[in-house]
Amino acid sequence: MKNNHIFLPVDELPKHWYNILPDLPKPLPPYKEPEKGVSRVELMKKLFTKTSLELEFSKERWISIPDKVRELYIHIGRPRPLYRAKRLEEFLNTPARIYYKREDLAPTGSFKMNSMIPQVYYAYKEGFKRVVAPTGAGQVGSAVAFAAAMFSLDCTIFWVRHACRMKRERASYTRMLNAKVIESPSETTKIGKKYLEENPEHPGSLGTAYAETFEVALNNDDTVAIWGSRMNHVIMHHTIIGLETKKQLEIIDKSPDVVLSCGGTGSNFPGLAYPFIKDYLDGKLGNIKFLVVQTSAAPTLIKGEYRYDFVEPSRTLPLMKMYTLGVETKLPLIRAEGLRSSSSSPTLSLLRHEGIIDAIALDEKEALEAAKIFLQTEGVLVALESAYAVKAAIDEALKAKRENKEKVIVFNVSGNGFFDMEGYREVLKDI
Amino acid sequence: MKNNHIFLPVDELPKHWYNILPDLPKPLPPYKEPEKGVSRVELMKKLFTKTSLELEFSKERWISIPDKVRELYIHIGRPRPLYRAKRLEEFLNTPARIYYKREDLAPTGSFKMNSMIPQVYYAYKEGFKRVVAPTGAGQVGSAVAFAAAMFSLDCTIFWVRHACRMKRERASYTRMLNAKVIESPSETTKIGKKYLEENPEHPGSLGTAYAETFEVALNNDDTVAIWGSRMNHVIMHHTIIGLETKKQLEIIDKSPDVVLSCGGTGSNFPGLAYPFIKDYLDGKLGNIKFLVVQTSAAPTLIKGEYRYDFVEPSRTLPLMKMYTLGVETKLPLIRAEGLRSSSSSPTLSLLRHEGIIDAIALDEKEALEAAKIFLQTEGVLVALESAYAVKAAIDEALKAKRENKEKVIVFNVSGNGFFDMEGYREVLKDI
Repeated sequence: MKNNHIFLPVDELPKHWYNILPDLPKPLPPYKEPEKGVSRVELMKKLFTKTSLELEFSKERWISIPDKVRELYIHIGRPRPLYRAKRLEEFLNTPARIYYKREDLAPTGSFKMNSMIPQVYYAYKEGFKRVVAPTGAGQVGSAVAFAAAMFSLDCTIFWVRHACRMKRERASYTRMLNAKVIESPSETTKIGKKYLEENPEHPGSLGTAYAETFEVALNNDDTVAIWGSRMNHVIMHHTIIGLETKKQLEIIDKSPDVVLSCGGTGSNFPGLAYPFIKDYLDGKLGNIKFLVVQTSAAPTLIKGEYRYDFVEPSRTLPLMKMYTLGVETKLPLIRAEGLRSSSSSPTLSLLRHEGIIDAIALDEKEALEAAKIFLQTEGVLVALESAYAVKAAIDEALKAKRENKEKVIVFNVSGNGFFDMEGYREVLKDI
Repeated sequence: MKNNHIFLPVDELPKHWYNILPDLPKPLPPYKEPEKGVSRVELMKKLFTKTSLELEFSKERWISIPDKVRELYIHIGRPRPLYRAKRLEEFLNTPARIYYKREDLAPTGSFKMNSMIPQVYYAYKEGFKRVVAPTGAGQVGSAVAFAAAMFSLDCTIFWVRHACRMKRERASYTRMLNAKVIESPSETTKIGKKYLEENPEHPGSLGTAYAETFEVALNNDDTVAIWGSRMNHVIMHHTIIGLETKKQLEIIDKSPDVVLSCGGTGSNFPGLAYPFIKDYLDGKLGNIKFLVVQTSAAPTLIKGEYRYDFVEPSRTLPLMKMYTLGVETKLPLIRAEGLRSSSSSPTLSLLRHEGIIDAIALDEKEALEAAKIFLQTEGVLVALESAYAVKAAIDEALKAKRENKEKVIVFNVSGNGFFDMEGYREVLKDI
């Protein structure tokens, strides 16, 4: 009996996260204060847990995963299987071997849980009673709500109004998890009221959601903010994906030629790729391609500038050096909202600037058509964001076919699409 | 580090299904021809695959699972973990140990795949080009579509019109799997046209969907019907659930005091329970309770009569002896449509009649409130149907608390609720 999948037993679950900071080819440019206003670095201390901030600047390469977090990792199905896409390979008639990591199996439907669980755990351990977070597409919101339920903490989610209404099912799910879901801007904060005075029909934006989140965290001692992406401590948590994948490829004695994943702000791609980039920087991997797959609506790593910018329109956090399209830039609306970010994470940007990673940008329709092929061959319904990775993996496999090379292509299915059918229907039309 | 879950390695996946026919306390009353009309037993031969019909009447206790089916079982995540509901136990402060089987982890979101995969495999092996099936709630429809995609067969699903429109997301998902989804009654069949002539706004029923399915299967040599529940060969396939669960309980050296699951027509409960009922009939289990949890909208095993009846309003299949509320009875509409059946499977009915299994009926609101507690404690969003089992498990655990007994309660989470949020919202109001 053939078995094309690689399962990692529970006792092989990694005991450490990987921190790329000490291994970067150049030091990460420090977070910077803006010329005017209060110290943003001091503000950060009031916004986030002590543990998160310690990790953010840690120079330790290996960060021990707390037992309680590992227990919950197991509870949510870690280690996750690595699947070989044998049926897709046959469909494409390619000599390439395509492997995909199953982050779509997460209970809330996305990889985001890998960081939301430890972040909420730190909040719990440090005595906070409530966590608060902004969300757009909603994957962060529901993952924070899940983690808060596990630690019996209160949870408030500021959800970009127009996105929340587009994601009605995910919003109900998040409420059912006991979170207080508030459409942003709202009457519950001063800044929210100000936005609504300016425009009673304000559709909301990540800017309004961040601003309300920060106001609540700064004004309530029992409340701490949870951060969804970009920052070092978040990325670190997600390296569990790549660390497991490395072990799985070792089991079958394969080394990747291409490692790719979709990338918005950038925590999913780093989660898969950084453990492999470590090996590459250590000289253990030869000719390898690291590929971030972006949306043409927000091609930060392709069309952005590498410079200091604010990471969110409320300008509460310090300036970070990164690829940015400009924090105030209006990005086109797409369905894969998780990829719609005006700038990229600092470490990912540095690696891009140093020429270590490649990036491409795809249109929504071609990505979602690829997801349809993937569903019909592999039986896996991927998230709208993950569809971009699927398309890129298919293109790489077809390239290998043209070159007649048995390349090993590895990618991450960052989430599932069960709350995404409306988006699929809108773009694919015929379903 | 604590680990409350029991994982079964892939090489422990059972190699056989269990057939309860030879072990029933009395012989199963044979399928019977009606007084008028063509031979229904002959019709069955034209409707279903040869293999399914052979299995339907097989007296073999152990049925070998084809390698190709086992491969796909592994592909869809079997063996599935058995979870201990430690957080729920703590919430209830009960001495009971509650274990739940994770059929919700199936890619199409329900246990139905366990039978749809082998049935479609038989169709593929016997040279059919297309499968056709009726569906109401849609779990059968999407599982058949999934299996058809895996074997590259064409797939037509007749979906009860009003249900299809209520389950828009699941219908889109099924179409994305390449199935032709047709709202029933339709203009594509003679019988469908007749229904529409009588009532152009016909909302459809399982009766219309069955009738159209059978017409297509009977009139197309390359097409065979797939059966969603009730029959022996279907139940047999689902015993993979209970066989895995038995192995898992053996690993932790526990014996169940209560085995329960939700039950509509009856293939989910038998799937979990029949392997344990075998042990009970063999005298290997002492004082054990087997409990089917039904909806008060269709309490067949409680208020039904044990007699011969038709199993579907089109009266295409033979009469079966079973608990029935009457095949023409109009059942109240509920959201957990998978439990809304006018009669129960013949083997389950016989076991009920012999006093081997218990049954209760619950209202929708109490069931869905229990599902909310389950989500907030265990982090698992169960299907509307599975919510009934959750409520019953909680009640059994509270009973154990009153009796101060460390009972072992085992139940099956037959599906997940990611396509059920609309139903949850309608009933729970506050999400």
